[in-house]
Amino acid sequence: MSSTNRKLYGYAGRILRINLSTRRIKVEEVNEKLARMYLGGRGFNIAKLYDEVDPSVDPLSPENKLMIATGPIPGTGFPLGARLNVSAKSPQTGILGDSNVGGHYAAEMKYAGFDQIIIEGRSSRPVYIYICNGEVEIRDAEGIWGLTISKTYDALRRELRDPGVQIAAIGPAAENMVKFSGIFFNRVRPAARTGLGVVMASKNLKAIVVKGDGFIEVAKPVLFEKIVDEIELEVYTHEQYWPRRIMGTSRILLAANKIGVLPGKHFTEPVLPLQYAFEISGEKLALKYNVKNRACFSCIVPCSRVFVVKNRENAFLSEGPEYEALAGMTVRIGNNDLEKALRAIELINDLGLDVISTSEVISWAMELYSNGQLTRNDTDGLELEWGNMNAVFELIMKIAYRRGFGELLADGVVEAAEKIGKGRDIAFHVKKLEMIQADPRGLKGYGLGFAVSSRGADHLRSEPFIELMDNAELGAKMFGEPESTLRLGVRGKGKLVAYYENICALVDSLGVCKNLAENMNILNYEKISKLIESVTGLELTPLEVEEIGERVVNLERAYNAREGINKTHDVLPTRFLKEPLKKGPSAGHVVELEDMLKEYYKAREWNPDTGLPTIEKLEKLGLYKVVKDLYGIVKSASFFEINKSSRSERG
Amino acid sequence: MSSTNRKLYGYAGRILRINLSTRRIKVEEVNEKLARMYLGGRGFNIAKLYDEVDPSVDPLSPENKLMIATGPIPGTGFPLGARLNVSAKSPQTGILGDSNVGGHYAAEMKYAGFDQIIIEGRSSRPVYIYICNGEVEIRDAEGIWGLTISKTYDALRRELRDPGVQIAAIGPAAENMVKFSGIFFNRVRPAARTGLGVVMASKNLKAIVVKGDGFIEVAKPVLFEKIVDEIELEVYTHEQYWPRRIMGTSRILLAANKIGVLPGKHFTEPVLPLQYAFEISGEKLALKYNVKNRACFSCIVPCSRVFVVKNRENAFLSEGPEYEALAGMTVRIGNNDLEKALRAIELINDLGLDVISTSEVISWAMELYSNGQLTRNDTDGLELEWGNMNAVFELIMKIAYRRGFGELLADGVVEAAEKIGKGRDIAFHVKKLEMIQADPRGLKGYGLGFAVSSRGADHLRSEPFIELMDNAELGAKMFGEPESTLRLGVRGKGKLVAYYENICALVDSLGVCKNLAENMNILNYEKISKLIESVTGLELTPLEVEEIGERVVNLERAYNAREGINKTHDVLPTRFLKEPLKKGPSAGHVVELEDMLKEYYKAREWNPDTGLPTIEKLEKLGLYKVVKDLYGIVKSASFFEINKSSRSERG
Repeated sequence: MSSTNRKLYGYAGRILRINLSTRRIKVEEVNEKLARMYLGGRGFNIAKLYDEVDPSVDPLSPENKLMIATGPIPGTGFPLGARLNVSAKSPQTGILGDSNVGGHYAAEMKYAGFDQIIIEGRSSRPVYIYICNGEVEIRDAEGIWGLTISKTYDALRRELRDPGVQIAAIGPAAENMVKFSGIFFNRVRPAARTGLGVVMASKNLKAIVVKGDGFIEVAKPVLFEKIVDEIELEVYTHEQYWPRRIMGTSRILLAANKIGVLPGKHFTEPVLPLQYAFEISGEKLALKYNVKNRACFSCIVPCSRVFVVKNRENAFLSEGPEYEALAGMTVRIGNNDLEKALRAIELINDLGLDVISTSEVISWAMELYSNGQLTRNDTDGLELEWGNMNAVFELIMKIAYRRGFGELLADGVVEAAEKIGKGRDIAFHVKKLEMIQADPRGLKGYGLGFAVSSRGADHLRSEPFIELMDNAELGAKMFGEPESTLRLGVRGKGKLVAYYENICALVDSLGVCKNLAENMNILNYEKISKLIESVTGLELTPLEVEEIGERVVNLERAYNAREGINKTHDVLPTRFLKEPLKKGPSAGHVVELEDMLKEYYKAREWNPDTGLPTIEKLEKLGLYKVVKDLYGIVKSASFFEINKSSRSERG
Repeated sequence: MSSTNRKLYGYAGRILRINLSTRRIKVEEVNEKLARMYLGGRGFNIAKLYDEVDPSVDPLSPENKLMIATGPIPGTGFPLGARLNVSAKSPQTGILGDSNVGGHYAAEMKYAGFDQIIIEGRSSRPVYIYICNGEVEIRDAEGIWGLTISKTYDALRRELRDPGVQIAAIGPAAENMVKFSGIFFNRVRPAARTGLGVVMASKNLKAIVVKGDGFIEVAKPVLFEKIVDEIELEVYTHEQYWPRRIMGTSRILLAANKIGVLPGKHFTEPVLPLQYAFEISGEKLALKYNVKNRACFSCIVPCSRVFVVKNRENAFLSEGPEYEALAGMTVRIGNNDLEKALRAIELINDLGLDVISTSEVISWAMELYSNGQLTRNDTDGLELEWGNMNAVFELIMKIAYRRGFGELLADGVVEAAEKIGKGRDIAFHVKKLEMIQADPRGLKGYGLGFAVSSRGADHLRSEPFIELMDNAELGAKMFGEPESTLRLGVRGKGKLVAYYENICALVDSLGVCKNLAENMNILNYEKISKLIESVTGLELTPLEVEEIGERVVNLERAYNAREGINKTHDVLPTRFLKEPLKKGPSAGHVVELEDMLKEYYKAREWNPDTGLPTIEKLEKLGLYKVVKDLYGIVKSASFFEINKSSRSERG
């Protein structure tokens, strides 16, 4: 640690850099400046990515870098603090690739000695990385290349003779360069959005295994314990605690049906008969299939569920599913058979695909099939009727192995539509990332969030949870606009989305679960400021804390701007802008995107004509290099020098 | 069955009448007229009680009658249909005594052959009754007299060599004539309000045991199954399902704290610090103590909980507690030790006391002790400081065995205040029944309900569940008054309480759980009409169904009127009318009882000057005998003849 730095508590303190081309391993220290500006996790990743991976880099080339970073919170025992971020330039979207997972990896990685792992270059043959208590090995993976996720896990645990290792692995889909392949942690917890598994595969890297006996010291244990007690009390007494504990996000299916925002049959049927909705719901899972709850490391909301399916065709035990998978393999593709959905999800996970994008390419094909634009001649004979799960099982295999009709879908919905010259208008994506399982016509803040998100059509950049439950009072209090927290409201959504983007960037940088910030709405900048102080010893005002979130969002926007993104890309598919929902409690609504966007740019203090951060905003956030990149203006020293001040080499 | 009657499905079809003085046993048939007018359960009981137990009867004399009746629903497999009613003239209040329980007794009693059991007379020595498949035995109970509830259960199961019998038993408190003693079903499910255990004890009857292998046939199985499916779907998809399943009513403690209506320190502290509230909450129970959920017969909401306490002082396994017990042995008496509260509740149940009245007499004494009106000289040396649980344990024993200071409290709070000439103004009761654990100043509909309830200060006659969650829209829809379903609203409460009184009387007569009617608000008269048709074959219009509930309420009011009750008794203790709540979310509020009462009598079409049913109303409901009793007017034949038309004697 550099002598100019105070001791930084909360962190493992080191960044691991592995070049698979040269097999050189470097260790850098986490310095106070980097911590103060970016905290960790998503912040660390975008800081490095902006600095090191620019528009000249082909995402599948050795020059792309895969970064795994966690924040100061995981491993401290803080509840709901077990997250990490994976980032790279995305081969799926061409812009920022970024995904966030919970589980047990983040804490183990810190106990093994590292806050961030950066993978560079490309191995000449399949390898995996084994990191144990600060030691790093690059090991042969010829024998496990090609294996599914679960088999990879089994093989690695056997080979390392240690069932307790934490594993991040890719499956056959990534190896086959399916653009929407993920990296799987704890077997069923994927960093699956934006195709990061493909980046890993392109480096001939099958897995990164971590194991550690270290521990993480917090700066002010008494204050920390007090904060933990307060947060735990708020969590345990939160009205959403028990439904979340019992069903996790799977309970959203029924809730989304109630307000008519389901993605039924590729966003043509927002509402289901209650009986149908119940039969595929988290409630049904809890009543019939779940056998046990499971929590992330040190979490007090065990929102994941181990379940068992037993029927004549198949019997298996697995974990999950989250709402996105559940809705994706049921209502989005017109399927009402829960057990088949669970099997499809299991297959998707085991092959290493992103279930959201998979559900889009399949439901997109089904919509084209339903109106005759695709026929059995196009689909290798598959009858892609809504809900035909036998066809879906086959199609998932075809996609993962790029076989026949699967090859068309394996590059994502945008390229599929381009290739066949059909269905461009119903390719539901933003910035080439396929849309999640919520119809923004009935959740307008989500709609705005999809349009502006730094990784494309995804909710987790800003998720104002079901628009904070239609509570006008809350909106008036938080944003001076009662409509802002009504799901069908428009005014105030710019402020709402900007606020939750900032706080989500912040918790992603801390390594904390979003449930604590936006779903339960328990965190605010004052509490986070105290938490950071108690863990790291860094004294940051609530305003400075807020600025970290804002800095991350602005830097991500700048990263994408450098790749050519601007206001013209902040859009939604036409269906959501022009075709009012036909049925249910949100009937008649479209997304009033233009109005919300104007307000959003204003709330962000961005240039309303370009949709880009202004020079003033960037300078205020200390992003001087961005000013130079976007506006050609050089001012003072680059903040990126902080990344270079304290590198040390290591064997 | 009388030849003039159609077959009545759903019922066991017979009423059992046992005279313990003469040991004569009679069996009467359930006839269609009685079923059409009163359905069963609470309806059957008040019909018989009005007819057979009049103001000349001393509640503790052989002339009082103890009636247990269940309705057409229990035993059919209908979910949430496992209830029965116990009724007699109350020795505690001098008016209608009535209590309702779930569990497994109701179904077993019907399988044993009876819809209603009527106990008359008095045995010369302790006995218990054993009813098995239509056969009735009066058996010696000398050996079990004096035993606690749990020991009584053990002894009876051993003696009958059958762990599967269903038992209704009294404990030492009832034997010692403690006025607020109950009858305990399934060990911890008491029919405890209004002192019915004392009536049983006065008859020298220790227990009534039932066992049956019969079954209950429904009239229209296909329709019945359809209704069951619909109800189950509504229950499973109800937003309250999971919290209720996990915590039962114990979850109300935190919810009541949130709105500031807890009975803290004898209704002087409506709100607790969140940490304190959590430590004694249903949430805490679920997180730390509960090991299993338990349901009533054929119920799909297993809202009861088996829990285990293990500490240095004691270790035990039991079931419950409900909110009333939990709040009664914690916040009401100033106790913040959950394990001690559980032990106190266990003791109260095992001795056979009503926990609500017990909590009132203890907290009443504590308030007097806190302001010096009672001293150690009065309390046998007990230091009755708030939360002194060692003193509470001792005091519970003293009450149950009428020892020392316990003797003073054993006749209820009203008589205790009279005897010492102190604390009359803080004796919290209505019509001599002690008040439950909710401060009506923050739940105004509950306040009105307490004032007019036919058994005194209790919520279960009308419970508009937490005033239906402050949903103004619902109030506008149901009663044309948005305020009616706001807990701090006043306008519309008369209609609200009258509506829920009627529907509660109806479900109590059917043998259905109130959770389905008022908590989940799933039932309405259309659905009940269909349900009755499917089970019994009786075709009743929704209006006729509603009238049954109204008839029961009016007949109960008439019963009490005959005992001298009128408008002047529809009151609340002064504290709730004159002293605004000092703290919390309901601060500043009192109960505007007069305004609500006026509206209530109007909604009931009762005489606003007397608070009694008018002749017109009584005649409309077919209550001609009541017209004669209350107004001295004889018109047409008494409907009570239906009760006498088909008696047959049996050995």
